[in-house]
Order: sequence, then C-alpha cells, then structure tokens
Amino acid sequence: MRKEWIDLDAAFLSSASVVGAKESEGPLGALFDLRDPSDRFGMKSWERAESEMQRLSFNTVLAKVKRAEGEVDALFAGDLLNQCVGSAYGLLDFDIPYFGLYGACSTCAEGLLLAAAMVSSQMMGLCGAVTSSHYCAAERQFRTPLEYGAQRAPVAQWTVTGAGAFLICSPSEFDEGEAYTAIKRGMVGKVMDCGITDAANMGAAMAPAAADTLTRYFQATETLPRDYDLIVTGDLGYEGGDILCDLMLAAGYDVRKNYSDCGQRIYHRKKQDVHGGGSGCGCSAVVLAAELLPKLCCGEIGRMLFLGTGALMSPDSIKQGAGIPGIAHLLELRHVSAKEGERKKWM
Amino acid sequence: MRKEWIDLDAAFLSSASVVGAKESEGPLGALFDLRDPSDRFGMKSWERAESEMQRLSFNTVLAKVKRAEGEVDALFAGDLLNQCVGSAYGLLDFDIPYFGLYGACSTCAEGLLLAAAMVSSQMMGLCGAVTSSHYCAAERQFRTPLEYGAQRAPVAQWTVTGAGAFLICSPSEFDEGEAYTAIKRGMVGKVMDCGITDAANMGAAMAPAAADTLTRYFQATETLPRDYDLIVTGDLGYEGGDILCDLMLAAGYDVRKNYSDCGQRIYHRKKQDVHGGGSGCGCSAVVLAAELLPKLCCGEIGRMLFLGTGALMSPDSIKQGAGIPGIAHLLELRHVSAKEGERKKWM
Repeated sequence: MRKEWIDLDAAFLSSASVVGAKESEGPLGALFDLRDPSDRFGMKSWERAESEMQRLSFNTVLAKVKRAEGEVDALFAGDLLNQCVGSAYGLLDFDIPYFGLYGACSTCAEGLLLAAAMVSSQMMGLCGAVTSSHYCAAERQFRTPLEYGAQRAPVAQWTVTGAGAFLICSPSEFDEGEAYTAIKRGMVGKVMDCGITDAANMGAAMAPAAADTLTRYFQATETLPRDYDLIVTGDLGYEGGDILCDLMLAAGYDVRKNYSDCGQRIYHRKKQDVHGGGSGCGCSAVVLAAELLPKLCCGEIGRMLFLGTGALMSPDSIKQGAGIPGIAHLLELRHVSAKEGERKKWM
Repeated sequence: MRKEWIDLDAAFLSSASVVGAKESEGPLGALFDLRDPSDRFGMKSWERAESEMQRLSFNTVLAKVKRAEGEVDALFAGDLLNQCVGSAYGLLDFDIPYFGLYGACSTCAEGLLLAAAMVSSQMMGLCGAVTSSHYCAAERQFRTPLEYGAQRAPVAQWTVTGAGAFLICSPSEFDEGEAYTAIKRGMVGKVMDCGITDAANMGAAMAPAAADTLTRYFQATETLPRDYDLIVTGDLGYEGGDILCDLMLAAGYDVRKNYSDCGQRIYHRKKQDVHGGGSGCGCSAVVLAAELLPKLCCGEIGRMLFLGTGALMSPDSIKQGAGIPGIAHLLELRHVSAKEGERKKWM
C-alpha cells in the first residue's frame, strides 16, 4: 500500500519576494522585498518582466544569507507561461542545475516539496525553489490582451504580478537555539477533474483537489484542523475558499476557524476591485515568502499547512470543451525554537 | 562545493511504448507495444490523442508487471503542449499523486531522475515516469497547422508521435540472479543559451547543453567515453549529434565511436524523409522503452549514458527575438546480472 505522506527533514534558509504595483498597494505591500510600480522591471515585454522578477528574487534570496550560486545544488522552478519560459530565461544567468516544473499555481508547493525531499534524503545540501506569474503576461496568454478591455466575471481572479524564491537547507545548518521554519511533512496532490469548464472560475475548479489532499492528510496523519494554527491555500480566492470550507465540512472537518487563502490575503477585497481575489504561481509564493514565513520563524504561527493549488488546463483544452483539472500539494511547516516558551499563538 | 552527480540506487521494473504511423514504419517499428496508423488513438483532436497515448502507455506499463495503480507512490510526467495538458488529462484516470514537469524534450530523463531519487532515498517504493509528444499537435502549436503545408528546413526535426512510460523500483524487488537495468547515477542539467535563435534548428540549440553535462560528468566521475558501451542523447538529431561530437572532441573527449541519438535511431534517414531526424518528449522515451532497455536488461548493452535533451523556448520567446535555451539531464544505466559471464559486449 502507498504511504500517503512523505516525512521531511528540511528548513527554510531564506526567502525573497518581488512584486508589481497592485501587490505593493495591498495589505501586505510593505512586506515585499522589491517592488516596481510600472510592473515592467526595466524590460520591453511582460514575459521578459516576469523572467526578470525571477532573476531578481533568486538573486535576493542568495544575497540575504550571503550564499553564492555555486553552493546551490539545484533549482526547482516553474511558472504559468507557455513552455515555462519565465523560469527558463529568468534563471539562465545562474550556473546551477535546473529542474523545470509545471504545476500551474501549485508550482511553489511542488518545488518546495521536491527541494525538501532532496535535502531530507541528503542527496543535496542546498536547493532553490522559484516561481512567478505576471498579470499582463497571463491575461494575454490565457484570456485576452489588456488592450482588448474584456469585462471580468464576478468570480474571476486577478493574477498576481510577483515572484517568490526560497532556499531550502538541512535543519543542521542552524545553530543550537536559533529559531527557524521546518518543513516536516509533505503530501503530493492528485489530478482531479470535477467537471468545471468555466475558465473564469478557477477557484471552483481547484477546491475539490484541495479538499481531497486536506482530507487525505487529516486521515493519514490522524490530525484535526484544530491541531494547526493556520491552514492556508495558494489561490482559491473567495469563491474557491468558500467551496473548500463547505467540502471540508461535508467530509467532517470544520476548517473555517483557522483557514485562509493567499489569494484572499494579498489584495484589499473591495478597495482594489479584484473580484474573486488573487491567483497565479506568484500569489502563494510571495505571500509565503513575505508574510507567512517571517511569522513562522518568529513563532507567531506555530504549525501551518500550506497547500499549493493549481488548475492544469490550457486555453486550447478549454476551447475543446474539456473540464479543468485541479491539483493541490501540501506542506506541513513548523516553527522550531530551543525555547518553547517563546512560541506565541497565532490568531 | 556542489556535488556534481547524484548516486542512485534504483531500477527499471517495466517500460511501455505507444507510437503513431511513422514511428511504426521506422527501423524500430516492430519493438513498440502499441501502434495506431491513424495517429488519432480514437480521439477527435491531436491533443486528446496525445493524452490518450499517455493513458495507454501507463496502463500498459502497469499491466506488464501486473501492478495496480494503488501501488504506485507518484507519477512524474510532462509533455510539450502548452500547460502540459497531454499529461494532466492523460493521467487523470489514475488515482496516483502527480508531479508535473516541464523539461521540453528532456522531460523523460528529468522524470526518471526524480523518480529514481525518490526511490533511492526510500521516500517512495514505486514511481512512474510518463512523457509524450505528438507530431500534429506540436506542429500546430510550435510552428503552423499541418493544413498550411509549410516547407521544412533541411535541419528541421520531426516530432515523434509517441508516449513512453516507466516504472521505477528498488533493486531489492528483483530476485537473486534476476537480470535487470539499474539506474546508478544521475546528473542534473543546467540551462544554457548559446545564442541559437533558429527554431528550425533545435539540435544546434541543445548540443552545447548536452556537451556541458557530458563533460562535467566525465570530469566528475573520472570516466572516459570508452568506459561506456553506448552514450545516447534524446533528440539532437543528425545536425545536433554532429555538433555534440565536435564540441566533445574540442573538450578532449572523442565520443564518436559509441555515440548515438534516439532521434537518429527512430526513423529511416532517407526513406522516411525526416530531414534532421526525430525529436520531441516522446522520442527518447519510446526508444529507451522499446529498444534500449531490453538491450540493457539482457546484457547486450552493459553500461550506458542516457541524456535527455530539451530546448526551453516558446513560440512567443522566439518571436520576441530571444535565444533558445537548452538543457540536458543525464542518467547512468547498467545491466545487472548475477552471472557476469552472460554480459555480451554491445557494438
């Protein structure tokens, strides 16, 4: 029989975030490392701008802990652009072995899971995980170019312009008594198609996959929602988040008290007019890097489940009438500190 | 300092191949498991046909060793279609945790490397790796729809219509004295852009990445080309293969005697009018599954280097004038048998 989860023994050494204008103006605006109000990052095209965000984020994550690229054993990277060119071109400057991933908006969790697995098995010592998305590049690729001025559906989500980068190391890198965020366990998602064909309602398409992974995790680990300070999904947004809570309730788990979604956290709901909330590979990556990891590291959050949620359709598969398959990868993160008393309860 | 290669302790439990018409008519035609001369596999679109090939190939790889999907810990899959929908839809039927990959035509080697790493670390017991490509789907996505009747450049390669599936297990699954193919070591490729911008000459774009990985591997492991019975790349084709041999010669390694390329092996060069040879994710996957692994398993090949080669550009990045980044992941495969005398020298 299959073992449902993977035991991991890894930690976050560093994280970095790069965002555009709208994200800077959101409630987490002050927390991001780099911001460009033009969304262009000095580049001529949106696709190049996305690549540049990846380059900048990985550059920053190395600089924060004074590590050289030669110390990184491998990069796990991906994005939403066709053929994942955001990552391929963005990380071209770095002389580091490279694993290309495609998990749509679950890529951040997928990359972290694989990086943590390689570090936990001691096959590698230090791994990078990088993901990005860009609103303008995503709109013209998945929907219509911005110039077209298409009207957005009420449940449509706003693709985050942002890139997040992480360095994953062994917990042995930290000194005795030093606080850090550990990656304790992971669960790989399954691809599920529940028949949603509306590409403007991705939250609904991904929610069943998130519910499946979360239910399997609670059952396999014999834990309950109350065992976690926070259960956070990548980008289900408002619609998908509500559906997840309903599906979990139907499965016998009430997650409403400690559930949140990165797509709900990144923008002001009404003031910024983002309809269904944030989405995109960059959404969960920058919220994790800039808000959640610092809270985990200082103990404000003690134990957290992080679910990267992805919708694996393409514009062509939608036109051909296929359903939207969803996936959700899970990571269990914990604050580790020598002085257990330091840990404050979050919420 | 980075350790250049990864030690692996895994083996091939089973492999399966599904191909279209042109591949069936090539020199390896009789070796493939399933063939459809219509290239449609009963589906209405080329994209659906590609997904169906993935489903069929994974179904076959399980059936060959009488394994159930519940015994497979994870799937590593990817393809060339936008958002990798060939894999997402093709493997939807299977209730198995799923890692989506994007390594272009290097995906087969990337998936095998990650699967072998998960098995070697004992985090997982049995992993699947599946990849595919479809000539008609690739042409209309990357170049022009077939109906357009575009003229092909002399160095242009022919995307293989095919899917390959593999099951990776621990060598401990085999009985004492039973012959099998072991995955001994792996090396992760680096993304390299040497300035090739001609999308009709992918072999030239990927050859420098293959030369980089191969040179690093010879240096790190202190081995020479003559230590291997066969050094085979995924889909450099005739042009790229010649360039690789030249680059290796310049680096001090003469690989010409035991070098081959899956894209050179799959079609009759002149009779089938494929210009630059075969290419695509499916190319290396079906040649490995149908021709090379059986030869390794029976000892006709004793020690082999398998390099998956990928070009990580998109049609948009080409239009925007960017170079074509290449990547090459390497696996060292070996015939294992209790009776060492059984091993016959290949070539």
